[in-house]
Formats: sequence, structure tokens, C-alpha cells
Amino acid sequence: MRENIVVIGAVALGPKAACRCKRLNPEARVILLDRGARISYGGCGIPYYVSGDVSDADELQSTSFHMLRDAAFFRDTKDVEARPRTEALSIDRAAKTVRVKNLDTDSEELLPYDKLVLATGSTPRSLPIPGAELPGVFAVADLDAAVNIRAGLTAGQVGSAVVVGAGFIGLEMAVALADMWGIETTVVEYAPLALPTVLSPTLASMVQRHMEEKGVQFRLAAQVTAIEGDGKAERVRVKTAQGEEILDADLVIMAVGVTPNTGLAKAAGLSVSPRGGIVIDEEMRTSDPDIFAGGDCAEIKNLVTGQDFFLPLGSLANRQGRVIGDNLCGLHSRFPGAAGAWCVKLFDQNAAGVGLTLEAARRAGLDAVSVHVSQFDRAHFYPDKDFMFLELVAERGTRRVLGVQGVSAMGDALVGRIGAVSALMPHKPTTTDLALMELPYSPPFNSAMDILNMLGNVGENILTGRNSSVDPLEFAALFDDRANPELFFLDCRELGNAAPFLAKYPGVWNHIPQGQLAGRLGEVPRDRKVVLLCNSGARSYEAFLTLAYAGFTNVVNVAGGMASLHTAGVDPKV
Amino acid sequence: MRENIVVIGAVALGPKAACRCKRLNPEARVILLDRGARISYGGCGIPYYVSGDVSDADELQSTSFHMLRDAAFFRDTKDVEARPRTEALSIDRAAKTVRVKNLDTDSEELLPYDKLVLATGSTPRSLPIPGAELPGVFAVADLDAAVNIRAGLTAGQVGSAVVVGAGFIGLEMAVALADMWGIETTVVEYAPLALPTVLSPTLASMVQRHMEEKGVQFRLAAQVTAIEGDGKAERVRVKTAQGEEILDADLVIMAVGVTPNTGLAKAAGLSVSPRGGIVIDEEMRTSDPDIFAGGDCAEIKNLVTGQDFFLPLGSLANRQGRVIGDNLCGLHSRFPGAAGAWCVKLFDQNAAGVGLTLEAARRAGLDAVSVHVSQFDRAHFYPDKDFMFLELVAERGTRRVLGVQGVSAMGDALVGRIGAVSALMPHKPTTTDLALMELPYSPPFNSAMDILNMLGNVGENILTGRNSSVDPLEFAALFDDRANPELFFLDCRELGNAAPFLAKYPGVWNHIPQGQLAGRLGEVPRDRKVVLLCNSGARSYEAFLTLAYAGFTNVVNVAGGMASLHTAGVDPKV
Repeated sequence: MRENIVVIGAVALGPKAACRCKRLNPEARVILLDRGARISYGGCGIPYYVSGDVSDADELQSTSFHMLRDAAFFRDTKDVEARPRTEALSIDRAAKTVRVKNLDTDSEELLPYDKLVLATGSTPRSLPIPGAELPGVFAVADLDAAVNIRAGLTAGQVGSAVVVGAGFIGLEMAVALADMWGIETTVVEYAPLALPTVLSPTLASMVQRHMEEKGVQFRLAAQVTAIEGDGKAERVRVKTAQGEEILDADLVIMAVGVTPNTGLAKAAGLSVSPRGGIVIDEEMRTSDPDIFAGGDCAEIKNLVTGQDFFLPLGSLANRQGRVIGDNLCGLHSRFPGAAGAWCVKLFDQNAAGVGLTLEAARRAGLDAVSVHVSQFDRAHFYPDKDFMFLELVAERGTRRVLGVQGVSAMGDALVGRIGAVSALMPHKPTTTDLALMELPYSPPFNSAMDILNMLGNVGENILTGRNSSVDPLEFAALFDDRANPELFFLDCRELGNAAPFLAKYPGVWNHIPQGQLAGRLGEVPRDRKVVLLCNSGARSYEAFLTLAYAGFTNVVNVAGGMASLHTAGVDPKV
Repeated sequence: MRENIVVIGAVALGPKAACRCKRLNPEARVILLDRGARISYGGCGIPYYVSGDVSDADELQSTSFHMLRDAAFFRDTKDVEARPRTEALSIDRAAKTVRVKNLDTDSEELLPYDKLVLATGSTPRSLPIPGAELPGVFAVADLDAAVNIRAGLTAGQVGSAVVVGAGFIGLEMAVALADMWGIETTVVEYAPLALPTVLSPTLASMVQRHMEEKGVQFRLAAQVTAIEGDGKAERVRVKTAQGEEILDADLVIMAVGVTPNTGLAKAAGLSVSPRGGIVIDEEMRTSDPDIFAGGDCAEIKNLVTGQDFFLPLGSLANRQGRVIGDNLCGLHSRFPGAAGAWCVKLFDQNAAGVGLTLEAARRAGLDAVSVHVSQFDRAHFYPDKDFMFLELVAERGTRRVLGVQGVSAMGDALVGRIGAVSALMPHKPTTTDLALMELPYSPPFNSAMDILNMLGNVGENILTGRNSSVDPLEFAALFDDRANPELFFLDCRELGNAAPFLAKYPGVWNHIPQGQLAGRLGEVPRDRKVVLLCNSGARSYEAFLTLAYAGFTNVVNVAGGMASLHTAGVDPKV
């Protein structure tokens, strides 16, 4: 039987589902339609096009061997009927038809379907503020919007920019503007930290500090209240705790998240979640068994919390597309959900993670703790290494790994570590699983005890009460309070490392090398909170054990040591 | 109770077990002894010391913050009594004592133990050939041997070298000699390929070809029969299929594997496997419950085959050390076994893998197939990318992943992919798990459909009969036979790519772009074997489906396409 398959939406999921279906069932007639003129492009590449790393917008729409994925491409190489500039107006589920309109000719048509796929994607959110619609204000909505932004950059019309939102797209756009075009760029974020939903405050500080060193300015815990201007030079009004500030900007980028496009689905009476996404089952069927949905317009299961959530990522859309393609042809492929893996490159620093942050875990009602570690990304004796900072979020009691996040200048190495954790997340790993995780080992790539093993080990020590640590920002707060006589800061490194601090902070900075501590316990006060510090957290942990064995009960060691403090920008200055 | 813990062997596992035990139970008296003068060094770093990447041997024995891990270090910072130059002569299990000898003073002593750890490691194998004991013949036995090798290099006494064995250590040593010291280096290997136990012939070709481009010569399927010389200039007799060859060498490195050191264990009546390693249970206990063993001297469970095996890797030793440390203190930590993850950097090329190769799987009696794919390591539109080549070994029927191996110039990216598979191996993943594996995604790091997802997809297609491929070496054999009238080579790329081959191989090279194939089926003979080729294997797969739908039954596509052929050095030359 020659089945009619209609796929609404031709970026990421749509083309994947259409082509997979056609490969499995060459008899099917597959129509792939999209409102946009450009189809099947890599939307995640937009910041790299804006920056100029990708020279031509067509590259984002091409195969790896430079064939443009336009309607002719889909017709000739995939036998799929692609229709750009075609909008789906409504779905008649009883008649099994979709009313579509050709946006060039305004003509309408009824397309019959046996199976329908909703790949309608998402739309950038706008702020409900005056001026949000000014011509100098851009959302990174699609490749056409990106072409407009870059045209302005190329014309040299942009000297300053404000990016609203410090999520992935906001920060990537800030890098694109500041790095390649030398534009004075300020990021305004409502939350008090960068990448607020996916990083801890400490890791976010590391990212922010690096971007600041590269010239990007931040206004955190700040709210844009209005944008005024003439479309050439905008004035962005920002409310901060310190009062109102006005930022001049030739270009304003709105990157405050996206909303799933569910209008068609709602109008057709399909089940849509109160959180906004189309509800689907594990085979990616909507509440109508002949209609599938996936990608940015649908909700999926969060493998950590067990709840449905909204995670608009191109990688998920592509994998889901294949699952839908299978199921359009009567297979029963399942999409099990996602733990929420992500990564981002920002200048020479990189961040990545999977699962929940400590804050997200607590918000989800989980009894969670977090652990921060620093270690070289490869064998410490190997040249060309750099630090990696990882944080584990684990559940007390069960010791379940709820999330791992990290920052490192060694991007592929960091992403590899997060990928290994991510691969394991469907199996609900514990800290023991991390501690014993088998990873390929050779000195150019890692340490014999990989940082993930170390993270598991430290996590176990924390969860079993064998270690007690403060993270770098917690240390910074303690050190700000250093006049407090109840605090005792103890540097456990060798004298060469400690000397400048002893000179700079007399009476505050104390020093006993870890190897001498057992013999010099009398120098450590038992009635004060002892804060132990070394370079990476390893020696301060040994010192912690020495003090615990000697009966000290009010001791913490600084997780990640000076390496983490320095990268987070909160190391005591000498 | 003050327990006596004796640990025999102070590299990798021994120190880890000793220190973990001491951290958990500060009351214990822990003695850590070793025959060698140097203890607790990173043996896997030896090739990097020989090359000069690591300038001083002490660095391999130091912490990441430059503290030398000698006996004083263990005493002061770990409260562990380390005794270098101390040999364990025998174990009296009834009396629970170890007889030890101080190799400097020749004095002997009986050490009582409550718990004993055997971390006796392994010894490089030697070949039973004349001349194997000549002074110019070195094994990479320990750091002292490495110091001797490098002393000769530094003195400029070495112009040519022969490395016997193309395993990890042999190839790393060949790189160290050829790259940094400019020494004419030849690798002799008994097997017909490099890294024979861990790579397929195609991937091994890629590694070999790269090393040859860098100046290393190979003699494969070759046997060293004798070494003759005076300790300064050796003559290495090599028997190959072509006859006998004599290689002159100022330096000969023997790297033909290692044998577990089990003499003490055997003499004490502990259970030792016929394959050579000490037998231990999941808590790493030997057949005597008060004696633990791990690292290179013990056997562990292979998570893929379920059988015990011998896998001498420093990373395993370190993780096992912590498990033993736990269990010395009455915890019940388990070491579940290993899938055999590994990686190696060789000049600018890298290889990594986990689990079984096709050959190993078949030898283990498994009904296995393998799949080869090529893809850019990151988004194809992102600058600074390179190809990655991955192979999947999977079991028919169950679709279980038995192994994944790969080669790429992007080392961290490759190791990250293998790490993700390795992390999942204890859960016996299937090709579907690979196809759906969640990985962090951003264009600077990978494609929306990661190469691991692609590998799973192609694996599924092969296992379900939707695709049929030949790997690059199989293609090479077919192309060598191109005069055979039963073969029909069909290039599915655009004319620009195909034209030089059409000119060079008239009558052999045929060309129909994949997008035109459905309309030009009449040009494809139905009575010949059709061999489809494109750049990466993607278009030839589409072409395969077009032909299959049209009723063609004798068709294969070349996995990995021209990218893989070229890297393996078997692309048709124009």
C-alpha cells in the first residue's frame, strides 16, 4: 500500500523522520513541509555562522560533502517531496487531512495523510517589555535571522551589543560578537549566574571570569526593563540591585529561551502538557495514534527525575527522528528519554554537563549533596595538560549520581568525561559506579585514576562522612569573613607555595605542611573552625583525616584547592 | 586493634591499597615493600620519558605538585612504612609471616601480617632466541631500564633501532625513538598487523600507514630468530615470508608482552590460573582469605566473555588498589571486572578501543559481525575537524555490542567516544543502545547525530539485513581483482569527484551520481556483483537501498567510503 506520510517541519527531526521512513518503506509518499525558505539546516551552528567561523550560511544547510539540502536534494537523493515556504494551517484528524498554504502563491491545499509527524519546533521567547520589537533587536530564531545579524556585522554597523540571557545561545552569541568582530558586548541575565540552569555558582564563575578576561561584560541578577531607540542605536534599560543602568547598543540579541510550537496540535485537540510541550508516549505517538511528534515541540521523559520535561536540543531531535521514522513504518522503536547532556565552547573555556545541578536536584525534592574536584585532564607528567574541574551531584542514602558538570580548557577531554557519565545515566549509576568506571587509559589522555574515578571516590568519602569540604565560592565567603576569630585558615602545602600568603595575610594565614601535621597538632586550635587548603584538595583531604583521627570535629577542606579558587577568580590575592 | 598489613609491590596498586587502607584505618601498621629502588612511579609514562617529553625520571615518581613519592614521602604524608630495595622471599601462610630481604644489606627479616597484599606486577617476556640477553637489547621493564635506554640516546650512541613487538609499548617506544631522537626505527611483529590483539586489519593499516609516513618501518608477519652483536651494534635476524633479512640496530627494544609475577603466590600454594595470573574473587581475595592480589599479577573477569583474563593496565591496578584498601579494612568493595578499554597516541594519530575485535569475538565462539564507519569528529561545518573511523563488533541475534575500536587524529575526541561505550559495557549494551546513546552535543565537539549513534544505526541496518558492506581492506582485495568481469565498481558521487578515476580506470570505474541512480537503473548490470562507493559510505548506502528496492541482490557498499580507503592507504590511486 502506498501510504501518505506528511511531516510538518523540515529542520532536524522532520527530515530525519522523513528519510528514515522512506528508506524503510520506499513505497511511501513522504511530504516534508516547512514555513521557512531554508530547510534541513544545522540550527546549532548559527553562532558559528554569525562569528564567521562558518563562512557561508549554505554550509549549515549542506551535507558533509557540500551538497545543499534543498527541495531538489530531497527529491533526487531521498525521493522525499520537500515543500519549503509551505505552512500547515490546520489538521482534520477525522478526515486525516492537513490544510496547507503555499506562502509564495497563497494557494491552499488539503493533504491527505495516513500518518502525520509534527516537527514544528520552537520559537524564541520575547520579553514583555517596551521596545522588544524594535528593528535592532534580534532573536536567534532561524538561519534567516542569523543572515540579517551577520549582514549588519559585515557592514560594520555594530560597535556595541547587548545580549539578553546567559544561556547557551546567549553566551555563544556573545562570544561570536566579541571574539571575531571585536564588538563591545554585555550579557544581561536575570539569574545571579551564567548558565544558571545547568551550572553551579562555582563553575558558572569560572565560565564568567574567562569570558570577562576576553572582554565580555556581565550584568547578573539584572532585568531588562525597556529598550529604546531608532533601530540603529538602542538604549537598553537594565535594573540591577544597584539601581538602573542604561547600556548603549547597536545590536540587541534576545536569547531568553524558547517556547514549543504547539498551536497546530492544540487546535487539533491533541494532548499538550501544561508546561507547554506536546505529550507523547515512548514510541513518540501523540494522543492520536496516527500522529507522531518530537523535537522542540514535544516533551520527553527526564531519566533522572522520572518526570516529563522540555529539552530543546538538536541532537535529541535527530535521534528522535529516526525513532519516528521507524514507527511510521510499523516498527516499534522506543525513545527512552534523556538525562539532559549538553556542552558549550566559550572562547578557550568549555563547559559540559548531564543531569541535575545541586539546585535543580533540591528543587526536585531530592536530598542531594555536591562534590567539587580538580585534576589535570591527563597524566600530570605529560606536557600540554590543563586543569579540569568536575562537580558531582549525588543523592544521600542511595548514592545515586543525579548529575555531573564540569569546566575545562581541554574541551574534547571534558566532553568525553561527561559523555561517559551520560551514557551510563539510563542505568541510574551510583558513586561506586563512577569510582570503578573503566575508561581507556594512556598518559596523553588521562591519569591512571581518571578524574571521573576520583570524583566517585571523593563522592563516596563525602557521603560516608569521611570527608567534609567547602566549594570554592563557600571558601570565598569564609575568607571574606577572615577577621572572624572562630575561623582558622591552614595552608597544607610546602613553604614555597605558602610563603607569599603568610606575608600578605599575617595572623590569618597559617601554615603546616601536610607531612608535618601529625607531629604539630598542638598548633591547631580545637575550638575554631579549621579551613584546610592545598593546591588541588588532595593534601588537604589527607590533613582532614589526620585531624579527624586526632579528634578534631570542626574541620573542612577546600574542594579543588587553589586550582579551583584561581579559575573561579576567588583565590586570595597576593 | 593495631593490624599489620604487608603490601608486596610498590608500583600502582600497592601504594594505592596501602594508602587507602591507612586512610580508613589510621591504627593499622602498613608496610609497603618493593625490590626496586624507585617506588610508586607511573610506569605507563616510560615511553614519554624515553622520548624526552618528560624531562626527568623523577617526574614519573612525583605527585602532580612535584613531591617525590619516595619512602620519606610515604612516611611523612601517608604514615605508610615504605621499604624500597626489599624483596619478599617467601610467605608462611600458617604463621602469617613474610620473609623479606634488604637488597642493600642482604639482611633478612620475618614480617608478621594480619592481611597481605600481592602487588607483584609482571615481567616483560623475552624471546627464546640467541642474543636476547645481549647488552644492547632492552626490555621496558621498569624506570631504571628506561633511564639506561635514555642515557644511551642522550649520549648519541643510537642511530638505528629495532623494536620487537607491535603492541602498545612497542609502538609507543618506536614513536619515542623516531619522533624525538630521529632514530631509524623498524618494528618487527610476528602477527600480520600492528596492535594485532586490539585492532581490525583495516584500523591497524591506518595506524601503520601513519607511522610509516613518519618514518617508522614495519616488518609484519616476521619473526626475530637471533640477535648478534657486541652490545654496541646489533644485527637482528628476521625471518619473513620473503626470506631472511638482517637489520642493523644500535638498540633493540623487546616489547613482546609481559608475564604475571606469581612465583611467591605459587610457592605459598595460592591458586594460580593455568593462563598465568593469580586467581582472585570479586573482593580481590586469593584462595587464602587473608591474602589479596591485584594488578598485573592477577586475573580478572572479562565483562564481555564472562571468562577470566589477564589485562595488565595501570588504570585497572589503581582502581583495584582502592578496592583492596577498602577490603583490608573490612568493607566489602567489589571489582566487577573489565571490558578491556585502552588508548594509544602514535605521532599525530590515535587509536582506542574496548571489548573484543571481530577476530577475538569469533575466537571466543561468538557469532559476530563488524561494521566500519567514518564521520567527522565534530560538526562538518565547524572548522578544525578531522575524520574519525570507528568499528563496531556485535553479536548476531542478540545485537549485543562486543567491542568498539577506532582511529582518529582527534585523540581526545576518540578517547571520549570509546570511554562512553566502555562506561556502558557492564550493562551489556545493544546496537540500539548505541543508536540512542545520549551524548553532550555542540558543533565544536560533535555532530547532532554523533558518530556513536551512527555506528549503532549502521550496525542495526547490517544486522537486520538492510545494508551489506565491505570494509576498506575487503574493498582493496576486490579492486585488486578488478579485471574480473563479474565485478562492477560504481562511484555514486558527483562527477567532480569521480572524473579522475573514470579517466584512470576506463572500463573498470563506473559512475552514476546517487541522485540519478533510480532513473538510470538500466545502466547497472544485474548479473554482476555491484560495489558501491562514495566519500563516507552514506550515499553508497542510499544507492544500496535504491538497488535493493529495484531487485538487485548482489550489491555491497564500501563502508567508510573514500575517507576510510585513503586513511588505510588502500584507495585507488589517480
